[in-house]
Amino acid sequence: MLHRYPGVTKKEPDAFSGNCPTRELLDRIADKWTTLIIGILGRADGPVRFGELRRSISGISQKMLTQTLRDLERDGLVIRRLYPEIPPRVEYSLTPLGQTLDEPLRALARWAERHMPAVRTAQEAFDRR
Amino acid sequence: MLHRYPGVTKKEPDAFSGNCPTRELLDRIADKWTTLIIGILGRADGPVRFGELRRSISGISQKMLTQTLRDLERDGLVIRRLYPEIPPRVEYSLTPLGQTLDEPLRALARWAERHMPAVRTAQEAFDRR
Repeated sequence: MLHRYPGVTKKEPDAFSGNCPTRELLDRIADKWTTLIIGILGRADGPVRFGELRRSISGISQKMLTQTLRDLERDGLVIRRLYPEIPPRVEYSLTPLGQTLDEPLRALARWAERHMPAVRTAQEAFDRR
Repeated sequence: MLHRYPGVTKKEPDAFSGNCPTRELLDRIADKWTTLIIGILGRADGPVRFGELRRSISGISQKMLTQTLRDLERDGLVIRRLYPEIPPRVEYSLTPLGQTLDEPLRALARWAERHMPAVRTAQEAFDRR
């Protein structure tokens, strides 16, 4: 697949190359917070409020959630809707592009859940060495 | 699937919970360096030397590569073999468990490569707002 970026013309995308924008994108999507946010939005029946997201992902800070959502919005993966009520209501949902990312990220979370016992066993063996 | 961890008995694994070890594992596998290292080892015909890995992943520091490989070894995903030659030769390959992670990570890298143009278009629209 050939495509163009400013300054990088007609090259195959290659996440292994530090110069390729794909590397930067991979860095943002291969991220635990992205995985969890996309996972929640992908499972939800409709738009999800900021506070709901924050409560669903234990341990995420307000700042990190805000920044990650902003990056996802800029990447075209998430839509942010502001309802000018008092207090203002902000809701998030996946774009069609974001929906295509849900499945590969879900596969990754499933892998982690499924193989955690094997990983734990390996860790214990490693730590005994 | 029920399983046991010290202090966390008979609970479903849940990467959304900050207390679940699955979250910590997801954090390590949903990582750009992990994705790239597993990708290279999964594509290779045989074991790969440290220097080869470093040259294949432009931009990774020696320290980051060493630490990521050590984490992957501890998690049971990568085997490290040291040949006591002069100079010592160190080679890495995937374990059978690591091989099962190759496909979901590869799907993620493919997603990034395939959808980079759409993401770039979204970013440009966002930045013009």
